[in-house]
Amino acid sequence: MKEVKEKARELMQGFCRVCKVCDGRACVGEVPGMGGLGTAASFKNNISALASVKLNMRLLHGVTEPDTSCSVLGYDLAMPVMAAPIGGVSFNMGGKVGEEDYIDAVVSGSKACGVIGCTGDGVPPFIHEAGYAAIVKNGGLGIPFIKPWEGGELDEKLEKARATGCAAFGMDVDAAGLVTLRQMGRPVSPKTPAELEKIVSKVHGWDAKFILKGIMTPDEALLAAEVGADAIVVSNHGGRVLDHTPGTAEVLPAIAEAVSGKLAILVDGGIRDGADVLKMVALGADAVMIGRPVSVAAVGGLQEGVETYFNTLKGQLVQAMILTGSQTVKDLTSRVIHRG
Amino acid sequence: MKEVKEKARELMQGFCRVCKVCDGRACVGEVPGMGGLGTAASFKNNISALASVKLNMRLLHGVTEPDTSCSVLGYDLAMPVMAAPIGGVSFNMGGKVGEEDYIDAVVSGSKACGVIGCTGDGVPPFIHEAGYAAIVKNGGLGIPFIKPWEGGELDEKLEKARATGCAAFGMDVDAAGLVTLRQMGRPVSPKTPAELEKIVSKVHGWDAKFILKGIMTPDEALLAAEVGADAIVVSNHGGRVLDHTPGTAEVLPAIAEAVSGKLAILVDGGIRDGADVLKMVALGADAVMIGRPVSVAAVGGLQEGVETYFNTLKGQLVQAMILTGSQTVKDLTSRVIHRG
Amino acid sequence: MKEVKEKARELMQGFCRVCKVCDGRACVGEVPGMGGLGTAASFKNNISALASVKLNMRLLHGVTEPDTSCSVLGYDLAMPVMAAPIGGVSFNMGGKVGEEDYIDAVVSGSKACGVIGCTGDGVPPFIHEAGYAAIVKNGGLGIPFIKPWEGGELDEKLEKARATGCAAFGMDVDAAGLVTLRQMGRPVSPKTPAELEKIVSKVHGWDAKFILKGIMTPDEALLAAEVGADAIVVSNHGGRVLDHTPGTAEVLPAIAEAVSGKLAILVDGGIRDGADVLKMVALGADAVMIGRPVSVAAVGGLQEGVETYFNTLKGQLVQAMILTGSQTVKDLTSRVIHRG
Amino acid sequence: MKEVKEKARELMQGFCRVCKVCDGRACVGEVPGMGGLGTAASFKNNISALASVKLNMRLLHGVTEPDTSCSVLGYDLAMPVMAAPIGGVSFNMGGKVGEEDYIDAVVSGSKACGVIGCTGDGVPPFIHEAGYAAIVKNGGLGIPFIKPWEGGELDEKLEKARATGCAAFGMDVDAAGLVTLRQMGRPVSPKTPAELEKIVSKVHGWDAKFILKGIMTPDEALLAAEVGADAIVVSNHGGRVLDHTPGTAEVLPAIAEAVSGKLAILVDGGIRDGADVLKMVALGADAVMIGRPVSVAAVGGLQEGVETYFNTLKGQLVQAMILTGSQTVKDLTSRVIHRG
Repeated sequence: MKEVKEKARELMQGFCRVCKVCDGRACVGEVPGMGGLGTAASFKNNISALASVKLNMRLLHGVTEPDTSCSVLGYDLAMPVMAAPIGGVSFNMGGKVGEEDYIDAVVSGSKACGVIGCTGDGVPPFIHEAGYAAIVKNGGLGIPFIKPWEGGELDEKLEKARATGCAAFGMDVDAAGLVTLRQMGRPVSPKTPAELEKIVSKVHGWDAKFILKGIMTPDEALLAAEVGADAIVVSNHGGRVLDHTPGTAEVLPAIAEAVSGKLAILVDGGIRDGADVLKMVALGADAVMIGRPVSVAAVGGLQEGVETYFNTLKGQLVQAMILTGSQTVKDLTSRVIHRG
Repeated sequence: MKEVKEKARELMQGFCRVCKVCDGRACVGEVPGMGGLGTAASFKNNISALASVKLNMRLLHGVTEPDTSCSVLGYDLAMPVMAAPIGGVSFNMGGKVGEEDYIDAVVSGSKACGVIGCTGDGVPPFIHEAGYAAIVKNGGLGIPFIKPWEGGELDEKLEKARATGCAAFGMDVDAAGLVTLRQMGRPVSPKTPAELEKIVSKVHGWDAKFILKGIMTPDEALLAAEVGADAIVVSNHGGRVLDHTPGTAEVLPAIAEAVSGKLAILVDGGIRDGADVLKMVALGADAVMIGRPVSVAAVGGLQEGVETYFNTLKGQLVQAMILTGSQTVKDLTSRVIHRG
Repeated sequence: MKEVKEKARELMQGFCRVCKVCDGRACVGEVPGMGGLGTAASFKNNISALASVKLNMRLLHGVTEPDTSCSVLGYDLAMPVMAAPIGGVSFNMGGKVGEEDYIDAVVSGSKACGVIGCTGDGVPPFIHEAGYAAIVKNGGLGIPFIKPWEGGELDEKLEKARATGCAAFGMDVDAAGLVTLRQMGRPVSPKTPAELEKIVSKVHGWDAKFILKGIMTPDEALLAAEVGADAIVVSNHGGRVLDHTPGTAEVLPAIAEAVSGKLAILVDGGIRDGADVLKMVALGADAVMIGRPVSVAAVGGLQEGVETYFNTLKGQLVQAMILTGSQTVKDLTSRVIHRG
Repeated sequence: MKEVKEKARELMQGFCRVCKVCDGRACVGEVPGMGGLGTAASFKNNISALASVKLNMRLLHGVTEPDTSCSVLGYDLAMPVMAAPIGGVSFNMGGKVGEEDYIDAVVSGSKACGVIGCTGDGVPPFIHEAGYAAIVKNGGLGIPFIKPWEGGELDEKLEKARATGCAAFGMDVDAAGLVTLRQMGRPVSPKTPAELEKIVSKVHGWDAKFILKGIMTPDEALLAAEVGADAIVVSNHGGRVLDHTPGTAEVLPAIAEAVSGKLAILVDGGIRDGADVLKMVALGADAVMIGRPVSVAAVGGLQEGVETYFNTLKGQLVQAMILTGSQTVKDLTSRVIHRG
């Protein structure tokens, strides 16, 4: 992993410092780039909210080979992890790796490790096209995410996503804050419940699941369930659309309490290692999405880099499960969390 | 905006570092200059009080083109924003830009962006004179603020302010801590309710509104209402007169609770971006005043710099309103604030 | 004051950095020297406890020329301030100024500013001798403090202190932690109530007041009152004898509640400016003692340096009283403190 | 001590910076090495949990020569302190000192100072062999700790430990997270209560006490008592096996409440000076174990270095006992701790 990070540090120069601890402090305001918007408070809150969660270490038990596998949205995963949908290598990551090579590394590397990769969207069109191609290449094992377009662009991208053979499809409605796109005549926007119902019904029409990314409050989580979404992603878009939001680990428990059992709960934001995965599941998530670390691994080592990252992560998760006495993912409940 | 800040950094050398994040840490104690007094605790408390307010991000709604306009003190503003009264370019900002050019940039730039600029006061007299001239040039669209002088100086400056044709007039009573002025035989001082009533009645005599700047407690906010003030500005003078006060965002909610509906509530202190504006309004302000960022913009780019800053700010406010599901300024209530 | 600090920075090289903000961070563990013991937690807690106290700024009143004077222990002081007893210039401050010149600057400078200077004690004997001489030179206007010696050394130093003509005499019982002195056959030690009663009765025998320095809990404050002490100094010895104590501003309110009216309450620890003086009085102190800043002023500018420091301090206190609407020292109550 | 640390800084280059304050910040993630795992949150939490405990300083009493001795697990100790079991000089500390010299310095130095040294375990075998040899050399005055092996390795090491003549034997079950050992075919693992009962019964069979290291929750402390352990060590393994655990000082009080009187309570984690020892005992520990500072002392000065460290520590403990008015170790109760 060390070599992968060193290579990434070289290739991402000027875009990401690949810091020892990735916490949003060095790259304040670097959007485009890999940083958080404005003062990067939302990015940093993701990190500090997770850091404030402490674990109960327990060793007097028989857990020696925990089972990290789980089933989410119909996918059988080797661990409760997905690669978050990120695109735009040229303007966010320095462009020393091609968009197609990048997203293929993410999707193929995820598949090789028994997890699933998501693909991103944006302008220019080769961002989503490269993602879709990677999903097709991997026999549909990948989840395309699109931005909350309006009108024809939405319909067209939905249709192309269907053609990838994917079993789930997502929209990161939190990207609606990108006023620039609207000014370019490429409007993205929040979605009303009525609009979402139509999209969900289309996606369900192809027998795929619908994932709504960008939920930060219990009321909108309930709305997502009401319009028929199969999953939400608790996310502040990595702190890149609205400064000053809480960290996702802070809002996750109340959201999980509100909609647990009604739909699958995914979460991203500041997840770096196996203990972070364990924490998020213990706080109420069915699985997590990992963004920046996967991007760094993909740029620094392509598919091999992604696999190295996920293998390291799985080792950390196994160790964290042993040290908290958790045999299966279902054992990751509030009992592993220390109440201060 | 980047160019404007770079130019300002060059011109303000020795007076303001134009930091990436303007938080009072680099310029501790630099009064004169742009810093906070003493340990700069009051300046830093402004920043940290605002930073501790977190926003509820919401995207499942139909807000795509929010309306940022509002009406305050009879002014119809494009957004709930004013330029705070700041003067003394030579001793606070390095003097590479003339006082007249500076304040004209602030007042004219504010008017061009549909907001309103305030002008400052001090010694020597060309500070307020330059401000008054800028207001006259802009057809009275500007608010003159004077220091809490005693005796003849007060009357004279009131009369000259009236002549500008302004529709509102303010006094920053918090400047009363400047013992130096008193020692120079130019006494400024706190004002008793009886003294304030006389001033208010004079200002009302010209059909103008009276704004009292420097309120930090609910009891003095109530006193301001009792003496007939039309607005208060919750302010610790940017942390430049008394070290160790709370941040304005910390005291604002209790003050708003005490006097909401009795007079207009303005607030300054640490407001940097559109999300900060949104926070202050959600905490109870009718509008905000912005100080240091406007000064930096005015020094770095004159009127164009000020306009660039306000346009950027408005874009941020629009984005923050979309991402919190707020169609109008009246929708900025406690529902946009996350309770931790 | 700037020149005085620059000179001090030069003369105290290797012993004190004369930092912009004197907060114990740069000099961690530097005892001897000017730092806090061990991790300097006690020194830093003094600073952070005071910093966490925030002030209510108020300007709608008639206070323009506040009266900073007060009467403590029979002394009429120009402000509620004393110079703390500090000695050992050679090993704590670099020795570029002689012990006699140093302590004379403190005592004479204090007297010139209408406050009172305390003198320190230690090994070698010229520390207390220089202090006693300075008090004699100032007509008894100075307070000698001695360490909690045992046996003959105690009696002898008491007798010599009496001869200075001082009206008050103090013991810093917190110095009892200095095991080194005990190992040198120069035992200092805690004092039992019975031992203290004897000392108090001796001091009262010369018609002088007795001050007990080093109280950090309400129970020992009550004990001090019971044995007849006329004043306590709430003090952790500047964080130099026991690491990890609370800051004095943190323990002061409970102590004041316990013994208010029974004896005079003095406090030291982290007081740097006029607002800090105001805070401590508002928290329950009758007067404060100031240590490091006076030492720096004395080394950097001798008597003139001390006077410059006290004059600056008084200006700050006046300003803080005006800005909190406090006409007299008696008005410094909990109403000036912001409850967060 | 200064010389010892300077020598250690030279010899441990690349492995430990021997910082002024040893708090886990400089060596984040350095495992092997002397750092904390991952983000070093567990290491840092040890430090911050102890730092948040503040002491009541009291001087009005007769404690001048406190008695630091205590009896724990049948050992009469000069103070409530042990050297924690640490091994692996070559890969953790730079290897400039041999494993045998190192552990002999720890065990012999501890004995010379009236405390007791523990020895560590690991791969290769000379780690525990060197430890056992040091214990034999010191007439059985040392406590061997082994990792939680399975099968034959466990039995063999138990038998060899018995042969050292030790009166107590320990297992650091928290080492079970070391997946690498398992992958090398050298499985370590958590222990079920049934497995522990067998080990305890064997150790009791040689008339020795059994110590279980790595307890972080009240429920597992109770389990330890139930299986017959004579002592637990509240420990997160210096933050080296699971990131994000609480600090041991944070969990100690609830654990002590649960099992006080049922077995002896030891604790390690961030203890640096005598006041830290006093704090841990006041929070409920019968004695503490000290890790990194002893290792630094052993590398920097061998047995003499260890003795210098323990003598300094004892001086600090004596001073802290005097300054909190504690005549004996039994007086170290909640009364010495300040409630903020």
